[in-house]
Amino acid sequence: MKEKIPPLQLCKCLALLLIILGLSACAHFNAHDNDDRYQGGTGDLGLIIERTEGSVLLVNTSQRQVIKRIQGLGDLSHASIVYSRDQRYGYVFGRDGGLSKVDLLRGEVVKRVIQAGNSIGGAISQDGAYVAVSNYDPGGVNIFDSEDLDLVASIPATRVTQERAEKGSKTVGLVDAPNNRFVVSLFDSDEIWILDMADNDPASGLQPKITRFTQIGRQPYDALITPEGRYYLAGLFGDNGMAKLDLWRPQAGVQRIMPAYGPGEQRLPVYKMPHLEGWTQAGRYLFAPGVGHHEVIVIDAYDWRIVRRIPTYSQPVFVMAQPDARRVWVNFAHPDNDRVQVIDVESLQVVNTIEAGKAVLHMAFTPKGDQLWISLRDDNRVDIYDPYSMQRSGSLPATHPSGIFFTDRANRIGL
Amino acid sequence: MKEKIPPLQLCKCLALLLIILGLSACAHFNAHDNDDRYQGGTGDLGLIIERTEGSVLLVNTSQRQVIKRIQGLGDLSHASIVYSRDQRYGYVFGRDGGLSKVDLLRGEVVKRVIQAGNSIGGAISQDGAYVAVSNYDPGGVNIFDSEDLDLVASIPATRVTQERAEKGSKTVGLVDAPNNRFVVSLFDSDEIWILDMADNDPASGLQPKITRFTQIGRQPYDALITPEGRYYLAGLFGDNGMAKLDLWRPQAGVQRIMPAYGPGEQRLPVYKMPHLEGWTQAGRYLFAPGVGHHEVIVIDAYDWRIVRRIPTYSQPVFVMAQPDARRVWVNFAHPDNDRVQVIDVESLQVVNTIEAGKAVLHMAFTPKGDQLWISLRDDNRVDIYDPYSMQRSGSLPATHPSGIFFTDRANRIGL
Repeated sequence: MKEKIPPLQLCKCLALLLIILGLSACAHFNAHDNDDRYQGGTGDLGLIIERTEGSVLLVNTSQRQVIKRIQGLGDLSHASIVYSRDQRYGYVFGRDGGLSKVDLLRGEVVKRVIQAGNSIGGAISQDGAYVAVSNYDPGGVNIFDSEDLDLVASIPATRVTQERAEKGSKTVGLVDAPNNRFVVSLFDSDEIWILDMADNDPASGLQPKITRFTQIGRQPYDALITPEGRYYLAGLFGDNGMAKLDLWRPQAGVQRIMPAYGPGEQRLPVYKMPHLEGWTQAGRYLFAPGVGHHEVIVIDAYDWRIVRRIPTYSQPVFVMAQPDARRVWVNFAHPDNDRVQVIDVESLQVVNTIEAGKAVLHMAFTPKGDQLWISLRDDNRVDIYDPYSMQRSGSLPATHPSGIFFTDRANRIGL
Repeated sequence: MKEKIPPLQLCKCLALLLIILGLSACAHFNAHDNDDRYQGGTGDLGLIIERTEGSVLLVNTSQRQVIKRIQGLGDLSHASIVYSRDQRYGYVFGRDGGLSKVDLLRGEVVKRVIQAGNSIGGAISQDGAYVAVSNYDPGGVNIFDSEDLDLVASIPATRVTQERAEKGSKTVGLVDAPNNRFVVSLFDSDEIWILDMADNDPASGLQPKITRFTQIGRQPYDALITPEGRYYLAGLFGDNGMAKLDLWRPQAGVQRIMPAYGPGEQRLPVYKMPHLEGWTQAGRYLFAPGVGHHEVIVIDAYDWRIVRRIPTYSQPVFVMAQPDARRVWVNFAHPDNDRVQVIDVESLQVVNTIEAGKAVLHMAFTPKGDQLWISLRDDNRVDIYDPYSMQRSGSLPATHPSGIFFTDRANRIGL
């Protein structure tokens, strides 16, 4: 059986090839007149990380095509992107500490700074003025002017002693929050900090007011903020449960919720720490990867209790709700990263298991949810699905694609 | 006292004048090179209706300035706007039945059709392919190709007999819904229809599949769809309560909810029908204008019960939540349309009453909620507020401004 390709399989392969060829043929970067700018609106654009190439693909979701490959972005393993207020620029956070500003209209890198030795993501302030980066090495948070990427504040992390040396705590789970704040977790010092850019005194340079919450639980490893920007939730590597900060009532401090969330007693080896950005809210429920378990956890966002554990194919990595909250799509950790499962939000059941391809690394819905894009790293392509029929409707070639970031993130708190 | 302007008042006036002059001075439409296109991203743009002028102002919320006035749009009383998938084009629905396609990059009307005698708003499909318009006269819904505004389907309304003549029912409350559907209410025939564009058979031309719900309650006058696109709620002019359609379970039919919502026994004269688009969801609560009462109604979106009636200054028209769901802003019907009240979502109390100016007609938050824009028709200006300090931070001149529509609507279901 291994030698023979079944006819249906062959048909599928040919169909896919035709789709790829068709789409490649019309890929271009010349929707412009007499200069080399892209001349359309920016509402249907996105960037896709090509992790091994140090490049991003500029894509258009209306024409469903690659507009241009933009190169020279350094080490993009674990890279992420936020967008400027006007959606013209993407800020790419590389693992090598690189922060790059990409102009979507010109299709080029306009500025690039190496701002630390090893970084793990960033955020843009609500007003669009500041880009913040959280760093592993040397720890802390650097804040840049979003226009020119000039460093405007460098916030050192709490010092910790590790292996007899003193260093700054790694910072993780950096997000933007309403009223021009950033929130970040400190892995090594068990803290959550609010960095307030709103009450800044321009006379003394940028000095964000820092509110520190200590002993929030051991080793916060990532965090998320709920879609409206009220609750900041940090996952704990060294404790069960999660640390919750209500940004409407910071004076109430950080609370521990969901003691049953986390590795627990019967833990499986954790092949990949799930992304908390992969959490998702659909109506009153939050859907989260069960850390080290083959399950998706359903949490009631009103009382923070776990209401269901949905068995899944393997250990979930990203758990993404359709914009219409009707279904939740899940991908899995290595070596089971060939499939995607679909959960029905009403019945809380898995309703479909899709053999998507080799190494599903990320998924992203178009803003109103008419398309789902899935990156298949080891198949060197990005597939487009109709979320309603759950059928593949297109495919684009890409070199080891990972994260997919559409420009509507510019309009969303915490993204 | 009427003859003398108090010093504080004078200071305020001068400050405002300076703000207006400062902003006017830098208003321009030349952020471009060698053609006359606007050359930025489209994520921070918007259009503001100038209702008596038949014009719209193209604005930028980052520079907080008017880019250009675009004229020739006909009767814009009660006009509204939706945006193309790429955010390049605005579709303006005029009261005179005009449908105009405005190019934000070129700052001009690219196409205009008079599609009916009297219309009342429209919607764009989830995939961006279709623009639908609901009409009073001759009733029914017209559906256009979003590219060229060619009419692709004309859906007649149920015939009704009025004053011994037969006519098509007025259609109202038209919205887009997930899976490429439109939903609309029929005022004169007490119906709600789903128009399904997804299961269309291209061979026979565009023939949306229509699902009809009859006897849904007397005279649905407007409707809204919840932010994720699940619940369609129609207000009833001739009945108390609202008609609710769960689009996840259309087979369950339309239910009547909130029997205590509506004019009731002790009704005051209704000076202006509240806009149901002015409903808003903040966390688990929906906030709605109390029809014919001086109150905002708070509804639990889980069991559809009224949990609070918040007394307000006058009869609310628009009830708008900040994107961070922290506060809700309310404007009022004539003759009390000079003020805006702010409700704290946690305490459900009015926390501020702002003397905003003459004839507050509309309010709109920038996508992430860093600014609130308020149109003051009879003061001929649009004011910009910081929603956190609740202080005015800027002002733009405009001629009898009404509706304010930012381009992030392109990314939102039902807007």
